[in-house]
Amino acid sequence: MAVPLTILTDPRRTGARRELTISPGTTILAAAHAARIDLTATCGGRGRCTSCRVKFVAGSVPPPTIGDEVQLGDELVREGYRLACQCMPTEAVTVQVAPPLEETAFQILGADRGVAGRVSIASGIDKQLVKVSLPREEHHQTSDVEALAAAVGVTAAEVPAGVLTTLPHALREDPAGATVTTFAGRILAVERGDTTSMRFGLAIDVGTTSVVTTLLELTSGEQLASVSSLNPQSVFGGDLMSRIAFAQFNPGNLRKLHTRILGLLNQHIAEVCRASGVLAKWIYKVVIVGNTCMHHVLLGIDPSWVGLAPYAPVMRHALTLAARDLFLKIAPEARVCLLPLVAGFVGADAVAVALATRIYTGEALRIAVDIGTNGEVLLGSAARLWACSAPAGPAFEGGQIRHGMRGASGAIDRATIDDDVRVHTIGDADALGICGSGLLDLVAGLLRAGVIDWTGLIQVEQRDGLPPRLRERVVMRGEERQVIVLRRGEAGAPREIVLTQDDVRQLQLAKGAIASGIAMLQHVAGVPDERVSELMLAGGFGNYLSIDSAVRIGLIPALAPGRIRYVGNAASLGAQLCVLAEPERARAETIARSIEHVSLAAHPDFEQIFVDCMNFPQP
Amino acid sequence: MAVPLTILTDPRRTGARRELTISPGTTILAAAHAARIDLTATCGGRGRCTSCRVKFVAGSVPPPTIGDEVQLGDELVREGYRLACQCMPTEAVTVQVAPPLEETAFQILGADRGVAGRVSIASGIDKQLVKVSLPREEHHQTSDVEALAAAVGVTAAEVPAGVLTTLPHALREDPAGATVTTFAGRILAVERGDTTSMRFGLAIDVGTTSVVTTLLELTSGEQLASVSSLNPQSVFGGDLMSRIAFAQFNPGNLRKLHTRILGLLNQHIAEVCRASGVLAKWIYKVVIVGNTCMHHVLLGIDPSWVGLAPYAPVMRHALTLAARDLFLKIAPEARVCLLPLVAGFVGADAVAVALATRIYTGEALRIAVDIGTNGEVLLGSAARLWACSAPAGPAFEGGQIRHGMRGASGAIDRATIDDDVRVHTIGDADALGICGSGLLDLVAGLLRAGVIDWTGLIQVEQRDGLPPRLRERVVMRGEERQVIVLRRGEAGAPREIVLTQDDVRQLQLAKGAIASGIAMLQHVAGVPDERVSELMLAGGFGNYLSIDSAVRIGLIPALAPGRIRYVGNAASLGAQLCVLAEPERARAETIARSIEHVSLAAHPDFEQIFVDCMNFPQP
Repeated sequence: MAVPLTILTDPRRTGARRELTISPGTTILAAAHAARIDLTATCGGRGRCTSCRVKFVAGSVPPPTIGDEVQLGDELVREGYRLACQCMPTEAVTVQVAPPLEETAFQILGADRGVAGRVSIASGIDKQLVKVSLPREEHHQTSDVEALAAAVGVTAAEVPAGVLTTLPHALREDPAGATVTTFAGRILAVERGDTTSMRFGLAIDVGTTSVVTTLLELTSGEQLASVSSLNPQSVFGGDLMSRIAFAQFNPGNLRKLHTRILGLLNQHIAEVCRASGVLAKWIYKVVIVGNTCMHHVLLGIDPSWVGLAPYAPVMRHALTLAARDLFLKIAPEARVCLLPLVAGFVGADAVAVALATRIYTGEALRIAVDIGTNGEVLLGSAARLWACSAPAGPAFEGGQIRHGMRGASGAIDRATIDDDVRVHTIGDADALGICGSGLLDLVAGLLRAGVIDWTGLIQVEQRDGLPPRLRERVVMRGEERQVIVLRRGEAGAPREIVLTQDDVRQLQLAKGAIASGIAMLQHVAGVPDERVSELMLAGGFGNYLSIDSAVRIGLIPALAPGRIRYVGNAASLGAQLCVLAEPERARAETIARSIEHVSLAAHPDFEQIFVDCMNFPQP
Repeated sequence: MAVPLTILTDPRRTGARRELTISPGTTILAAAHAARIDLTATCGGRGRCTSCRVKFVAGSVPPPTIGDEVQLGDELVREGYRLACQCMPTEAVTVQVAPPLEETAFQILGADRGVAGRVSIASGIDKQLVKVSLPREEHHQTSDVEALAAAVGVTAAEVPAGVLTTLPHALREDPAGATVTTFAGRILAVERGDTTSMRFGLAIDVGTTSVVTTLLELTSGEQLASVSSLNPQSVFGGDLMSRIAFAQFNPGNLRKLHTRILGLLNQHIAEVCRASGVLAKWIYKVVIVGNTCMHHVLLGIDPSWVGLAPYAPVMRHALTLAARDLFLKIAPEARVCLLPLVAGFVGADAVAVALATRIYTGEALRIAVDIGTNGEVLLGSAARLWACSAPAGPAFEGGQIRHGMRGASGAIDRATIDDDVRVHTIGDADALGICGSGLLDLVAGLLRAGVIDWTGLIQVEQRDGLPPRLRERVVMRGEERQVIVLRRGEAGAPREIVLTQDDVRQLQLAKGAIASGIAMLQHVAGVPDERVSELMLAGGFGNYLSIDSAVRIGLIPALAPGRIRYVGNAASLGAQLCVLAEPERARAETIARSIEHVSLAAHPDFEQIFVDCMNFPQP
């Protein structure tokens, strides 16, 4: 029998509440999502993270599940916390949503030069002021659109239907004339008066975890504004496979993912327009990149089979739509260009990385690693180009780590270990958790100090040989090995922050995915380390990690330091190139068709390489 | 100061009520429309008809305006009726909406052979069952759409974006394969299993007053169902000019007209599908005809300037859209074809009439008259074709006639006059009012009987020479001349039904518009009556009127009876031809460009011809 369930939806106060009923066998997470309450479930509701935890504030607290104990730990369990994805109430209860660790607010990125100066501007967007001779006599058998077409030099039938509604006013209301915007000869807009100097474009990088939108001025190529935020689909699954599982054969859930991302894009558009003072109706071109799953969901295409062998995408070709078809609130006929895909798990973002890094030029063999929840690795030169996916999962973004968090204020982003653990936090704020680069530094430091061995085991039994202060941080609690990174109060931490054995395993899985991707491409292409002229680190996380730590844990091969460099958010930069230069967009098509996709799981040598890469390099 | 206004919205009971407030200087009609209460205003709220009349049931009845007295007459004014468009209350009142004379329900038309057999079927819609070889191995770098494109023989980029979402399921869920629908090589739909025998199309005639939708089977050409109903825009104005005035420079009102007609089309689609058992998703092609204003409003294009000299349309070319762009609930990518227009007041309906009547063939000179609220006249042969608009207004549909009504049950549709008035009603029901064909018969009979003279004046002073029973029907009430068609109780009439002097004047205006259009075309083309080989009467009304009466009142020239014939709803039949045969649709474009539009008002001889045509022919 269904029982009442009250959810206090605001973590900070009890005022915001929703009254539901919940049927037997239904989890609180499922009931919350059915009622459109945003409850984050980074692991996709599999009991493998802490993001969906709720606190019981009325009604009896159910006994903890194994998931509760493993993920939340004794302390939180005692305080009445449970994982909403594991808990199926059988009597009336009231639960409060826990404050998220993630920053969900928009992050306004500093506008910089972006790719301006790196490319000859040829956006394809053209504006011209025309004076149209309107019909004057009743016996003239003509029309507004015919008069316009004659002035612009096209036929009436070439004027898109979406533009027709604007004509009667636009052609009559300003004595200066009307401004006609075209893209490759196609009319996109007709505006009254002279707006020829107003032409803008958007580059959008839809990542599994983060979405970045950049507004560009199409004459100078200048970045006017850029905004980044969490992909709001994350509440339905942190990594690609759990995202696909959520939507699989479930049209309602697919619609949720679809509308979430379109809603966010419109928020981003409003935000970059507000920040720059640009009117959204002056945005005429958009280039979107993303992995195959993000791409499909953005278009409302069911990604179910992308998640099933042989992982075939529904489409791979470059697609251009009208903005109104995606309900984007810019010029309705603006061209939205989706770059081509390569395979089920190598998407348009990899193509954009190839474009931005120019990896397809020259004779030198280079590697580009886009580190993200769904990472990609590229290897090649002008001669050949290989790519594979490297599904690291959300560990580098703080997901599935006991005290993990995204790289926001209070996150431990740097750490060194000598006779003790020393940390730095973002914004020098009180320590709240560990983000990806901090995790790398911690594990690399613990490896060097001998606290972790090459198999990843925390050396509790051998801790006696450690310096005293470090030794006290290496503990066995129940059956769990832990390193106490910060005790409550250290570095302002409001609670103890630990690194668990399981956290180390998660990192090993994540770095193993990336490292084995690199190794496999080198293996398939027959390129040993010494023939790799350069390794380029791309992606939001890739630009913050310490190269030393990355090499120490074996995330990337031990090339000479000068041969490893950061290349920024290459996927976004590649999209920006395509906004500014049509030849780049044409090149994307060529690159997508020339990339040789290396399917890791299908390769006979992969298993051994992956196992090797899970371990840490022996010094 | 605003005062309370209560509107009882159901003419038959006082239960349905809306409480509003109304500001000084606002008419009840404006307040009702602002509150989205449907109050019919056939004349567009200009005090020129009775359709918006309301009855005061509480509060003091305001003194009648001239409009009230002229339109409603003493009796209704005494009973507390007023015109909502003229009345601006200054104290709290309650009014009841009067029962409409119009039938607003759908009229299911008998399915007949339509144009089947008159044309070689070549709808352009093709369906084929394909078996698609889906990607099987992970290293196959391909996709669903590429596999489909290979099977159909197109490129992936030619598959419309709207079809992509259907692919993963359609290609996998039926071992028989998938059915691909194309139109001129363009893929419109991919459906699972074998649906090759399911292919349907719609012909839609959007008239100012009536909308007719016909469902056609695309292999046989058979009419499966046809439905007709009042254009729901009529509540905002009965004729074109009042409809345009309502929308002029008022985007909110334009949106109302736009959404009303789209809403009705979806109701029609549901109705013809229900009647025939056809699934709406199997409708792949639609052809819409309508006059220029209806066409523009259907597309959401502001018709403001169509109503202002030089009456230029915004567009004239044939347009093909996806059904989803018009929110029509059929196959989303179905092609919706709007036939081309000729000029501001000669639309696609005239082109369709030309198609259906084959007036563009042969050497014989013929005339086609589409009688409607916004009528059109065509004259010509294979050599040349002239057209003009003939804005008869709604009198032929019962509008602006004191006791006028549409051709529904209870309408007087036939009348003869000998020593008395003898009437026939539709369905032999109790007489409720006079429809267009009855009006023609009455006036023609009164002319023959000498009750009306050739100038249209009711001969009250000369009535003594009439047969006694007829004489008693010719009366002067106040300053108004009337013919009492039925006294209360005669032919079951629940109230007196009269023909007023003003009704005769309205008919003179209406028939004068048509007759002067015919005369002008003959004048411009230099074609006297004896060279006209045939006159074709088209349109809903055109097929019910008595040719004798039409000739007697001078609506059409006095050709030999065998040279005048009915041709049905030619606009709809022309649309049906275009649904069934692409060559007909191509011909529509040729015809539209070859028609010479004769602008009546701009012609120096028009005024005299119009004045002559207002009078009745002298025997």
